[in-house]
Amino acid sequence: MNAEIITIGDEILIGQVVDTNSAFLATELNKIGISVSRITSISDNHDEIINILDEATRRTEIVITTGGLGPTSDDITKHTLAEYFNTRLVPYPKVMLHIKTLLSARGVSLNSLNIEQAELPENCELLHNSSGTAQGMWFTKGNANVISLPGVPYEMKGIYMEELEPRLRKRFPLPSIHHITLLTHGLPESQMARVIHDWEVNLPGNLKLAYLPSPGILRLRITGRSPGDRLALINQMEETVKPLEVLIGDQIFGYNDDRLENITGRLLKEKQLTLSLAESCTGGLVSNLITSVPGASDYYKGGIVAYSNDIKSDELMVTSEALSSHGAVSREVVEQMARNIRLKFKTTFSIAVSGIAGPTGGTDTKPVGTTWIAVASDKKISSNVYNFGEERLRNMQKAAIAALFMLRKEIMSY
Amino acid sequence: MNAEIITIGDEILIGQVVDTNSAFLATELNKIGISVSRITSISDNHDEIINILDEATRRTEIVITTGGLGPTSDDITKHTLAEYFNTRLVPYPKVMLHIKTLLSARGVSLNSLNIEQAELPENCELLHNSSGTAQGMWFTKGNANVISLPGVPYEMKGIYMEELEPRLRKRFPLPSIHHITLLTHGLPESQMARVIHDWEVNLPGNLKLAYLPSPGILRLRITGRSPGDRLALINQMEETVKPLEVLIGDQIFGYNDDRLENITGRLLKEKQLTLSLAESCTGGLVSNLITSVPGASDYYKGGIVAYSNDIKSDELMVTSEALSSHGAVSREVVEQMARNIRLKFKTTFSIAVSGIAGPTGGTDTKPVGTTWIAVASDKKISSNVYNFGEERLRNMQKAAIAALFMLRKEIMSY
Repeated sequence: MNAEIITIGDEILIGQVVDTNSAFLATELNKIGISVSRITSISDNHDEIINILDEATRRTEIVITTGGLGPTSDDITKHTLAEYFNTRLVPYPKVMLHIKTLLSARGVSLNSLNIEQAELPENCELLHNSSGTAQGMWFTKGNANVISLPGVPYEMKGIYMEELEPRLRKRFPLPSIHHITLLTHGLPESQMARVIHDWEVNLPGNLKLAYLPSPGILRLRITGRSPGDRLALINQMEETVKPLEVLIGDQIFGYNDDRLENITGRLLKEKQLTLSLAESCTGGLVSNLITSVPGASDYYKGGIVAYSNDIKSDELMVTSEALSSHGAVSREVVEQMARNIRLKFKTTFSIAVSGIAGPTGGTDTKPVGTTWIAVASDKKISSNVYNFGEERLRNMQKAAIAALFMLRKEIMSY
Repeated sequence: MNAEIITIGDEILIGQVVDTNSAFLATELNKIGISVSRITSISDNHDEIINILDEATRRTEIVITTGGLGPTSDDITKHTLAEYFNTRLVPYPKVMLHIKTLLSARGVSLNSLNIEQAELPENCELLHNSSGTAQGMWFTKGNANVISLPGVPYEMKGIYMEELEPRLRKRFPLPSIHHITLLTHGLPESQMARVIHDWEVNLPGNLKLAYLPSPGILRLRITGRSPGDRLALINQMEETVKPLEVLIGDQIFGYNDDRLENITGRLLKEKQLTLSLAESCTGGLVSNLITSVPGASDYYKGGIVAYSNDIKSDELMVTSEALSSHGAVSREVVEQMARNIRLKFKTTFSIAVSGIAGPTGGTDTKPVGTTWIAVASDKKISSNVYNFGEERLRNMQKAAIAALFMLRKEIMSY
């Protein structure tokens, strides 16, 4: 089963907005066994909308549009769809009530534009928008199904999840689809491909592997597809993945949508350990990652961003001898930072990071990207040096990810 | 003059990659007076490519494709274009030399796939890719211009800027286009629209205004278009913007692509002032924003992330009386944090932030989103309370932006 996605609105065509709605819909539709064969962005223009509806319904059975459902005059999708499907707009009292309730909760009074939003095509099926005023609509004519969703991402997502996906599953004969994603660290894509080559070429025909790299992390996503029973498919996939888990067990740090900062956070929480940080070149990024997790205060006490050498000496008691003879980016300094922040903040673990983020500050022996990271506990201090490259913001990101991986390793062997 | 953009590759259709290439091209093409009338994403499929080329060249004179130029077997754009334009692939010795040089600089040896990348269509114009092995190509047939660029974003951007944009400017009669963007803070979109209504309705027909909101910041972009002289257009626009600058001067904090963290950084540097931070709920985000600017070490000495109350007492000398009678999220505590970090880190200015990021921790009197921010100098301490809403990560972002705005205000009156 195929679908086409059409985004309606000038903001994508002028580059003002990146089209994340299509990526969301494509991901979700693929999950339930609907392939997206084409994505088209057009402007809020009557003739353009009519033309693309003609084209798309000729090519595929399911057409999903987003955008153009707002209350202002440049939003013409609803009127154009009513015209295209030969129907008229009529007041929907239930929708009116919903809009009133929603606006009064926001302390906003109803105006004529909102009243018009409760007028919808007579012969379409409404898809309730629990978090906004623009309703979703499902039109059918012959084999064609045209589904119109608003362009505001969280409203579009809400309608898709609550209203549209269950209907798609019910109305179309979709295959069972299942995904297992392994989160790995330590092997770049090309090396990983070599290590798992034999496993990959022997994959059953209904399973497909995708490599999804991002800074410091490589995700391996296995997608399974079966015309039959979903549980049998999941079973088959879990059996197939087992030898892979043996092969690259050291590299796997998590599964599916999990995140490194959540994984390290859970490890700390489960073992009732605490953490402090001493950051130089990452400038607070490690701290920011850790505190992005709700409940981080259970294990994270805080940290010091020691951006200047003064602060390294005064607050982290880094010796002037270490700073002058080894430099701020050195094993000696980063280990002192880690040891001293841990004692000062009274935590089980600490991380310290000191590096040259760039673009300036590099030398022949320590080029831009050189970064020392140390992890300390009451039992030991481990430190590593990395070279991440030329680009300031990527250096900071890669250093933060590497720091969390070092922490994870030390917690697991603690 | 119109153009269509076509992205070729499965990764967008399965939602694995968000299509940022089209947003880049749309932005840049609009800047030089070429409107994008349609963006289409299709898969790496021979018939799909042929069909969309037929469709698009019928609709518009300029068609730009991205993707499908890599060395592996699923990249079929080059062969399909050669077929479509009735030409054959021939070796280009200069391209071969470039690929060899590029690979040897990376320490990679040439393989047969790379040699194939130097075989290109006989009757197209090559667009040199200075940072990669896949060349851009420009085909013409009758009125149709089909331009093929690689999908790797930085290679695509490089070819566009270095090779394609100058050619587009030379070959097509493009209007003069100019943009002026005002960065504003303090008025939400609806209020701003009321304040500048009279100015907006009197805009000359060749100038267009767009409202571009993001958390805490509203950008007003004025786009001017003229068939004639570019300097005259710029002059006209600057004259038109002057009364707007009078009207909302208090809200304007910068222009065009500038960023708040760069603006505050420059202010500190120019006045030779220094900064320290004491962050609780923002967990290092303010520090991270400030250190994202190259050269931040000229004015930023460092900060303390005081996530637990222990750290607030021990490191920032917040009194237990203030913590127990007012709570960690209070004017008293945030002002003590700001005062004490400034003295401890010996800086001219300091910022302190303490709030309830959520999702838990809210009370009736201090709901999730309540955030106190203080800015201290040797002359005074200013503090404000905000309520940002329910969402943890947005609360942290909004608090960081608000903190930088408070700092900017205090520096300017210092």
